[in-house]
Amino acid sequence: MHFASDNAGPVAPEIMDALIRANDGHAMAYGTDHLTQALESRLRELFEAPEARVFLLTTGTATNVLALATLTDPWQSVFCHRDAHIEVSECNAPEFYTGGAKLIGVDGPTGKIDPGALRSAMASLSDQASPDTRCGTVSLTQVTDLGGVYTLDHIRAVTDIAREFGVPAHMDGARFANALVELDCSPAGMTWQAGIDALSFGGTKNGLMSAEAVIFFNPAHAYEFEHRRRRGAHLSSKQRYIAAQYLAYLDDGLWLDLARRANRAAARLEAGLKGLAGVTLVHPREANMLFTELARPIHARLRDAGAVYYASKASRDDYVAARLVTNWATTDADVDAFLAIVRSEG
Amino acid sequence: MHFASDNAGPVAPEIMDALIRANDGHAMAYGTDHLTQALESRLRELFEAPEARVFLLTTGTATNVLALATLTDPWQSVFCHRDAHIEVSECNAPEFYTGGAKLIGVDGPTGKIDPGALRSAMASLSDQASPDTRCGTVSLTQVTDLGGVYTLDHIRAVTDIAREFGVPAHMDGARFANALVELDCSPAGMTWQAGIDALSFGGTKNGLMSAEAVIFFNPAHAYEFEHRRRRGAHLSSKQRYIAAQYLAYLDDGLWLDLARRANRAAARLEAGLKGLAGVTLVHPREANMLFTELARPIHARLRDAGAVYYASKASRDDYVAARLVTNWATTDADVDAFLAIVRSEG
Amino acid sequence: MHFASDNAGPVAPEIMDALIRANDGHAMAYGTDHLTQALESRLRELFEAPEARVFLLTTGTATNVLALATLTDPWQSVFCHRDAHIEVSECNAPEFYTGGAKLIGVDGPTGKIDPGALRSAMASLSDQASPDTRCGTVSLTQVTDLGGVYTLDHIRAVTDIAREFGVPAHMDGARFANALVELDCSPAGMTWQAGIDALSFGGTKNGLMSAEAVIFFNPAHAYEFEHRRRRGAHLSSKQRYIAAQYLAYLDDGLWLDLARRANRAAARLEAGLKGLAGVTLVHPREANMLFTELARPIHARLRDAGAVYYASKASRDDYVAARLVTNWATTDADVDAFLAIVRSEG
Amino acid sequence: MHFASDNAGPVAPEIMDALIRANDGHAMAYGTDHLTQALESRLRELFEAPEARVFLLTTGTATNVLALATLTDPWQSVFCHRDAHIEVSECNAPEFYTGGAKLIGVDGPTGKIDPGALRSAMASLSDQASPDTRCGTVSLTQVTDLGGVYTLDHIRAVTDIAREFGVPAHMDGARFANALVELDCSPAGMTWQAGIDALSFGGTKNGLMSAEAVIFFNPAHAYEFEHRRRRGAHLSSKQRYIAAQYLAYLDDGLWLDLARRANRAAARLEAGLKGLAGVTLVHPREANMLFTELARPIHARLRDAGAVYYASKASRDDYVAARLVTNWATTDADVDAFLAIVRSEG
Repeated sequence: MHFASDNAGPVAPEIMDALIRANDGHAMAYGTDHLTQALESRLRELFEAPEARVFLLTTGTATNVLALATLTDPWQSVFCHRDAHIEVSECNAPEFYTGGAKLIGVDGPTGKIDPGALRSAMASLSDQASPDTRCGTVSLTQVTDLGGVYTLDHIRAVTDIAREFGVPAHMDGARFANALVELDCSPAGMTWQAGIDALSFGGTKNGLMSAEAVIFFNPAHAYEFEHRRRRGAHLSSKQRYIAAQYLAYLDDGLWLDLARRANRAAARLEAGLKGLAGVTLVHPREANMLFTELARPIHARLRDAGAVYYASKASRDDYVAARLVTNWATTDADVDAFLAIVRSEG
Repeated sequence: MHFASDNAGPVAPEIMDALIRANDGHAMAYGTDHLTQALESRLRELFEAPEARVFLLTTGTATNVLALATLTDPWQSVFCHRDAHIEVSECNAPEFYTGGAKLIGVDGPTGKIDPGALRSAMASLSDQASPDTRCGTVSLTQVTDLGGVYTLDHIRAVTDIAREFGVPAHMDGARFANALVELDCSPAGMTWQAGIDALSFGGTKNGLMSAEAVIFFNPAHAYEFEHRRRRGAHLSSKQRYIAAQYLAYLDDGLWLDLARRANRAAARLEAGLKGLAGVTLVHPREANMLFTELARPIHARLRDAGAVYYASKASRDDYVAARLVTNWATTDADVDAFLAIVRSEG
Repeated sequence: MHFASDNAGPVAPEIMDALIRANDGHAMAYGTDHLTQALESRLRELFEAPEARVFLLTTGTATNVLALATLTDPWQSVFCHRDAHIEVSECNAPEFYTGGAKLIGVDGPTGKIDPGALRSAMASLSDQASPDTRCGTVSLTQVTDLGGVYTLDHIRAVTDIAREFGVPAHMDGARFANALVELDCSPAGMTWQAGIDALSFGGTKNGLMSAEAVIFFNPAHAYEFEHRRRRGAHLSSKQRYIAAQYLAYLDDGLWLDLARRANRAAARLEAGLKGLAGVTLVHPREANMLFTELARPIHARLRDAGAVYYASKASRDDYVAARLVTNWATTDADVDAFLAIVRSEG
Repeated sequence: MHFASDNAGPVAPEIMDALIRANDGHAMAYGTDHLTQALESRLRELFEAPEARVFLLTTGTATNVLALATLTDPWQSVFCHRDAHIEVSECNAPEFYTGGAKLIGVDGPTGKIDPGALRSAMASLSDQASPDTRCGTVSLTQVTDLGGVYTLDHIRAVTDIAREFGVPAHMDGARFANALVELDCSPAGMTWQAGIDALSFGGTKNGLMSAEAVIFFNPAHAYEFEHRRRRGAHLSSKQRYIAAQYLAYLDDGLWLDLARRANRAAARLEAGLKGLAGVTLVHPREANMLFTELARPIHARLRDAGAVYYASKASRDDYVAARLVTNWATTDADVDAFLAIVRSEG
């Protein structure tokens, strides 16, 4: 009953097979191998962006901070949701990589930036007496860190403001696929066609083994990225293994199937938790994360039974806040076992 | 005929099997899984250092710069060989991670730091009028970037000087195993018993898939390493896959067998090149790298035949400097094919 | 009619005389001169802190960021008021000098940190699931950037929270004297006796010529400050001139007289503005800054007459927000001239 | 008998008078005052560079590192003489401000970069296999840190190489005037007409009180300088006092007179030391610095008599290396007193 993180799940079997197949003889290192080159072509095709630049990495944080560092000056401020991963969970890596750019967190429901609050914050920074303060990149997370999925209109509302202030827009897509299958739109539609300039295209949370990518839709935005990657100690020598995974991931819609499975498991979990005594669903499920509050006895039963999830302070003392995350490998049996314990008596 | 880099080689079959076995169900992420914990125990046992701290990463450069950042203050200078990887091939990552520590390159044959030159450089820095300059970590590479293998006495001579100036000693062991099998000593003997405080214990060049580790023999030296790793965007979530590789690597001496195979292939290559017309061996083979100079017609023939290696300016205009690196998967057939072309007529 | 900044005022005549006197022959450079040493003794005596360490600089921002860098780790967060100078007016210098520490702005009236909001923010950071986030230094500004003066009890309430979370407390005292004369307490009482560990002891805004100081009450907190200062390019060679100014500043209570003059000018201005049509006093004067809103016609008259002050968006469209700052050299005539224009008809 | 540093000298009387005159009433802060603007015009005229950008600072190190940071990318290497101030005496400030650019020291006599050695070092970096290494700014010091004065031809030889590799050229002119009076050429002739793109135009060592300037001859090179200055905590609020000093400095050739006085004092000293027993002149005087070796008994006598200079290890055990620096205020009496002690018997 692993609901702590989608990072806890195994690698999908098709992906492991791809790794085995790629492990054939020698290949050029440092990204000059043919698989890495094939992947860039494939992603350009998938995102309908024939000039896009693609760079492979091994952690989602690296994709975020290297993209931000490439797009943002050290004396600028990056705007994001106040609960964004880059603001709350990256141990000041964004500040480190950008050379000290400030992160300004903005409010909004379910982790989605409120456009009015964003414009207000950016205008406030621009209005300041000192001529040296500067607005920088706007970064939004899709799926958000509170499990929310932006509609296309909402993405455009945010990126329109970035454009209004003359700054680029970045999307942290650690759970990109989980959002895409909910919106049922194209990858281009959810990114550059909605105003996104650079995308952290996550893989690790959706069945890959430490595989992540950054995509710059306009090659001009990728200026000096390779230097920053190497200087950040993030240039993998055996990149063919990252590329091989992504090629299998994108083959035959596997990536969308994996995401659908994760989302369905979360939907099943939500359906089972609805209306149960001692369980509050903080907001409706939108992708593969549920934010709940559980009465302490329930929490204790679950822990005793070996259920794993992140717990923190709830809004009421006799409850515990529990974040439940499903991944492609979460089975109906996993979900049902969890529900059984919730329903059972102490 | 791949002789460009030991990074170009495939992952060893035993390692791939370990990855498949590790891909079983869920596991805690971010290094709290049982495989990562088992690996730390195994390495403590292997290095006879019961209190050692072990941290997993995915690039060799990351192991170097995070170790240096943990050991070195921003206003200090790191001492290394002038051809060291950290000085020449890391795109200023050491300066970035340490917050601006200077790297001072010292001379020595075959990439091995000359103790007299080191003491001279460190004394010179200490003597300077300004009280703010400071000596920092001494870093040596084993196997060196020019293919050399330090004897244990030589390692001690260097670390003795570090101790004399009150600074720690780091070993960049990207090719650790390739040196160990030549010296036929214990891992402890080649590291902390010879005065090394922190080791970049490489795996990727010797058959692993993007797996690297940092070992601090004295836990006090690891102070704040985890913060620096996370802030550097180098915390892998699915660490069980790195750990699983290393556990198989260290099982039954596989890591030493892989290194012996690479070194033997280089020895076979050297034996075949000795005395050939148009070929100069710059210095004798010590591990798995050969530095040669090839007459231009030979170089042309090799390129035409698809041989891959790094070429640069030689000491004479009609020659090309060629670095030939073997890895665990280099076969006798690979070597013999290369030699045949060298020997053949235009 | 200069009310833009206390930085716009001239240097006090006693200070200029001290510079002339200090300009006598040669003196050791880089702070080893006898005036700098005399000043450290004098400040230890004034602050009743016999072990305090004192460092001289030339900008207030430098005192803040070097103190913060010395007290804070790169992976920590600094807590301050959301309108604090370090957060809003230092062009990310704090992030630069600390190596990427995050600044977390907290609410409170008139620029004074609300203790409850501070505890809440610090607890929230400490509670987060990720073990790598860390609370760092708490920094408060006295006089605040919105003209407020903390009572001693309020300072203690804030520093108590810092202590509760095991972090140091810093005071940005760019307008230290302007607050001290309002509280009528001792320098020790307003700093270390109220829990402050490090003080940016401002001089430039109160009659000095680019003279600033950092005081660490506990010498242990000053660890490595000199290296950071030099590395920040902030080590002045001719420090005797900074020291000479401060010695005259502290002689015979000159510094308190200068501050009283500035505060009285602001009081006179406030008294004159009270109740005037088209003028709103946003909050009562506490030191030497007034925050007002002026009807646009009044603003236009003042500008036409050559009055200088920072203007920005007010809460109502037909008004302008005007910040009026007095300094030691602001005369009754300056104030009365301003008032006359405000009162006059277009 | 102060010969330790030209920073130890007093401020010239004409400069002190200028400070007193500038201390009149209020002025706009942060460089928007009319004196700062007048100075930029004056320097454009003096350097025959009508589009030059001028920025005022208070330390020489700040002028160097802010100029280098503006001209150099973090993944580049700066080339300088191995004894350059930026390499040896700035506590890694260049690495800090550039975000980790490496400094590569090159040889040459008397602190002057040898063009052949420079081309060799830059070509070597460009030739390296890794495509990510990059040559960056070339920085030369005039007067060098070993007291040498580049001829115009030598400056051009160095800047020609910078141009060949497509990088800018910076001049650290902490002692600019001391060189100019020796070459008897125009300021333009010694800088942009000889290929220099940015100049650290020193003042503190030649009679000013903590006044320094950076001049970019091509305004495009000054891109983002103001942000970097503010972010470095180097924006002085009361800039009129820096500007006022420079205006007086440049008035009526005062700056050249001050430099000539310093150089003449050094010439007098050299003449007196020539041929004395127990004294070796390491190389002939070129500006205002002498590098000598003194027999230990002479050194002891001088110290006992209160002479002040930097002493370090000499080439022979029974001697001490002594650096003797004169400044505008060094009198014939100072020099003669020193010589008398050297000549006297123990």
